[in-house]
Amino acid sequence: MTKNLLKSEPKNLYEPIEYIMSLGGKRMRPILVLMSCDLFGGDVSEGMEAALSIEMFHNFTLIHDDIMDKAELRRGRVTVHKKWDLNTGILSGDALMIQSNQRLEYYEGKIFKELISLYNKTAIEVCEGQQLDIDFENIPKVDLDQYIKMISYKTAVLVGASLKMGAIICKASLEDQKRIYDFGLNLGIAFQLQDDYLDTFGTQDFGKKIGGDIIEGKKTFLYIKAIELADSIDKEQLLVLYGNAGGEDKKISEVKSIFTKYGVADMLLMEIEKYTNKALNDIDALSLDRSKQQLLKDFAMSLMTRKT
Amino acid sequence: MTKNLLKSEPKNLYEPIEYIMSLGGKRMRPILVLMSCDLFGGDVSEGMEAALSIEMFHNFTLIHDDIMDKAELRRGRVTVHKKWDLNTGILSGDALMIQSNQRLEYYEGKIFKELISLYNKTAIEVCEGQQLDIDFENIPKVDLDQYIKMISYKTAVLVGASLKMGAIICKASLEDQKRIYDFGLNLGIAFQLQDDYLDTFGTQDFGKKIGGDIIEGKKTFLYIKAIELADSIDKEQLLVLYGNAGGEDKKISEVKSIFTKYGVADMLLMEIEKYTNKALNDIDALSLDRSKQQLLKDFAMSLMTRKT
Repeated sequence: MTKNLLKSEPKNLYEPIEYIMSLGGKRMRPILVLMSCDLFGGDVSEGMEAALSIEMFHNFTLIHDDIMDKAELRRGRVTVHKKWDLNTGILSGDALMIQSNQRLEYYEGKIFKELISLYNKTAIEVCEGQQLDIDFENIPKVDLDQYIKMISYKTAVLVGASLKMGAIICKASLEDQKRIYDFGLNLGIAFQLQDDYLDTFGTQDFGKKIGGDIIEGKKTFLYIKAIELADSIDKEQLLVLYGNAGGEDKKISEVKSIFTKYGVADMLLMEIEKYTNKALNDIDALSLDRSKQQLLKDFAMSLMTRKT
Repeated sequence: MTKNLLKSEPKNLYEPIEYIMSLGGKRMRPILVLMSCDLFGGDVSEGMEAALSIEMFHNFTLIHDDIMDKAELRRGRVTVHKKWDLNTGILSGDALMIQSNQRLEYYEGKIFKELISLYNKTAIEVCEGQQLDIDFENIPKVDLDQYIKMISYKTAVLVGASLKMGAIICKASLEDQKRIYDFGLNLGIAFQLQDDYLDTFGTQDFGKKIGGDIIEGKKTFLYIKAIELADSIDKEQLLVLYGNAGGEDKKISEVKSIFTKYGVADMLLMEIEKYTNKALNDIDALSLDRSKQQLLKDFAMSLMTRKT
């Protein structure tokens, strides 16, 4: 981390920021910024401030999302609004978002303008994605296009933006900027869909309790597709199961058997493959030499072949 | 207002933004941006997007502050988090802040960079001011310097920034940019101190109930100075009065009599005059012709001579 990342006073504003930033995580987004810089032949250290900006923005969304989701734990530690209080969560989140934008002031001229534009566009989409996610809880029927839009906005656009920032900083062509963004977007969608799959059909090693989405009644790809395909009896059954609290293990197994009956797990695997292939095609279109393309492909495949 | 100010979908995200922006208010900050453009001989219409940016940012702070203050009314209408809910208040506020930053993308090059830097610096200070205001509720003793810092950050810096934005856009010299900022900062402090005075010693026409700060137990200039000067009996009495709920009219009159005994109202009037004079001196230092300086002075005096 560079110096002067965090101010210290007033401490009730900045301690929660230091706390959330110290909780760790995979740091995938900042790594993507730097990786993209490297791919396009730039000085990786030039990407550092943008990498920090993206990671800080991501952590801002975690603080506010945890409030909205009433989450008590984040990465195994108490969430900011639980450790402090609601007002601290709101205000520290606001300050962290502004600080994340401020990191981009390191850049100059055209690059600065392009980074801020991309940042703002992406940030608005992330808010819209979160709103769609909230909306989906309260509307009876979500269609698949809306669902893909929600996961794109809520998570995949920030993956695309991370890679595009590296490309902007290291002066890749406009075509390559667009392609590396599309690669990140499609890979992000594939990754999020895979998350849905593993949540229901993965093994325990996935780290979360299997069936979490079913218990929470989340309208994922599997549910949306099953509602679309099921006959009226199974559909009614699925609605009842999703509407009821309790009976966790029984509920999971019954919902899964409906999913299996209508083949929606396989459809989801095909959808994951579709977006993974889109991402791989985006790599082929990049004006990078083969070895660099292969590096990106290996990265994409390593991300998409987690079995658990 | 320019076109395309507000997006419409998802409506649960953007309706609250449209709502808060439609509640009105004096629109003082955007007017200051445009006035500053005009003073420095620029095209007033060039300041429009910055004016919108500042007003949108201000409205973002209103949404989040109302949540933190548990306020039910804003400009006589229901606050966003009461009309919708907590999550809507948080998320719409976030989106409005990002949109306010986005308005600045209208500008290019050096001007764009300077506007974003000023915006971010000011926005962080506004968050810090809000945090200090919250902190003051929970600490027994606030000193006057801290108090002036709090009101500077919470409100005055945005007045200074509004004027400086106009100066940046219309290519005023760096010296004039600094002076017009200082003018706004000092005038903003004077105005806020006057608010404190009128809240306790104004007439009913002020629009708010007189004595509101005393009832809420706010640590204003009057209270801080009285605690500093009072003998031990009066100090104890003041602490007890501030610590107790209820008995409103009696409480107000007793607190006011302590304020009067120690002359803190007059001290506050002198402090207001000090900052008003600072602001007027800042005007004299501007490289503007006399008639424009007089215009600014008239504006400042009209703001500072409200009697109620």
